[in-house]
Amino acid sequence: MDDDDLRRGKPTNHVVFGEAEAILAGDGLLSFAFELMTHPDIRRAASGEDLVRIIHLVARAIGPTGMVGGQSLDLAAEGREIPYEQLRLIHRCKTGALITASVQAGAVFAGTDQERFAALSKYGESIGLAFQIVDDLLDVEGSTEDLGKTAGADVERKKATYPAFFGVERTRSMARDAVAAALAALADFDERAEPLRALARYIYDRKK
Amino acid sequence: MDDDDLRRGKPTNHVVFGEAEAILAGDGLLSFAFELMTHPDIRRAASGEDLVRIIHLVARAIGPTGMVGGQSLDLAAEGREIPYEQLRLIHRCKTGALITASVQAGAVFAGTDQERFAALSKYGESIGLAFQIVDDLLDVEGSTEDLGKTAGADVERKKATYPAFFGVERTRSMARDAVAAALAALADFDERAEPLRALARYIYDRKK
Repeated sequence: MDDDDLRRGKPTNHVVFGEAEAILAGDGLLSFAFELMTHPDIRRAASGEDLVRIIHLVARAIGPTGMVGGQSLDLAAEGREIPYEQLRLIHRCKTGALITASVQAGAVFAGTDQERFAALSKYGESIGLAFQIVDDLLDVEGSTEDLGKTAGADVERKKATYPAFFGVERTRSMARDAVAAALAALADFDERAEPLRALARYIYDRKK
Repeated sequence: MDDDDLRRGKPTNHVVFGEAEAILAGDGLLSFAFELMTHPDIRRAASGEDLVRIIHLVARAIGPTGMVGGQSLDLAAEGREIPYEQLRLIHRCKTGALITASVQAGAVFAGTDQERFAALSKYGESIGLAFQIVDDLLDVEGSTEDLGKTAGADVERKKATYPAFFGVERTRSMARDAVAAALAALADFDERAEPLRALARYIYDRKK
């Protein structure tokens, strides 16, 4: 949708296979996700009730109130000045919701109580925010080679981004804050949460 | 994807809202279907195991081996000569699979046994086939006003269709046969299957 020719260093789908096939690839993978989540092998590993709850969380995070809705708001905002609150909403829907849902899915699988579910949700939201802030930073500071997509594309298209609102320094400290919030949400978890903590740190340190 | 300006008598989404929003509307509705199928109200009405099975049937009917796969095969066949078996495969995926899955979903909800599930599947496949054959016929015989989409578009684009393979008369009799097969599949069902029978007849009689 940003019509970029590169993604992860490779030519984008619509450039190689044409627009119709690219749209179908999206629709096909989207459906296939639900096919996979309900595969007999998965059904043997979780109760029907848990699976249905997970599917609901994931579907909601993708659809009109999640990633797709966020992308639509993002398109509507292009080339216009929007308040920071709107940028936050766009990010919460566009990237935050699905990252959060993926953490919540694990929580449901593990049978956590409400309190831990809330803590893990908070962790998911925080790394989602951190991911987006760092993404904006990388667009300003990264190279096309490292990123695997065209660097500077956001500035080029006058997109509302964290650096555009707050400058690079303040943005970097906001990313740190978001990672700190993610780690704080895990305060009551033992060493089994270490991979989640490592993931939060990785999001801050990543170069692409 | 056929780039038609009209659908059901109204301007198509991409004509009114642009291509990006039209793609997102598709993605959003696709996700929303799964959000709806797992809504708490639905969860109260069916067991988790049944719901998961239904979601699997529906997802498979939409995805790479269903509607989306069929559409992709259809695009690949455009402007080329394909054997009739390929046309059948395209239709089975593109329209047949989802119609069949919608009948199967009802069967799972109702808790039917394997034999009846198979009979209802056969019914679904047969009305799916009838629907597609009649669709091809209407493109040749219907008016743009009745159809709500551009009549003659298939011929214009040299699409492989039943009339193109078999001529109009033979195609009409194939539609009749498909409806008869659908009704035969319901032979052991009592009067509660009357709406399904009426649906099969309607598909043959419809003018749009």
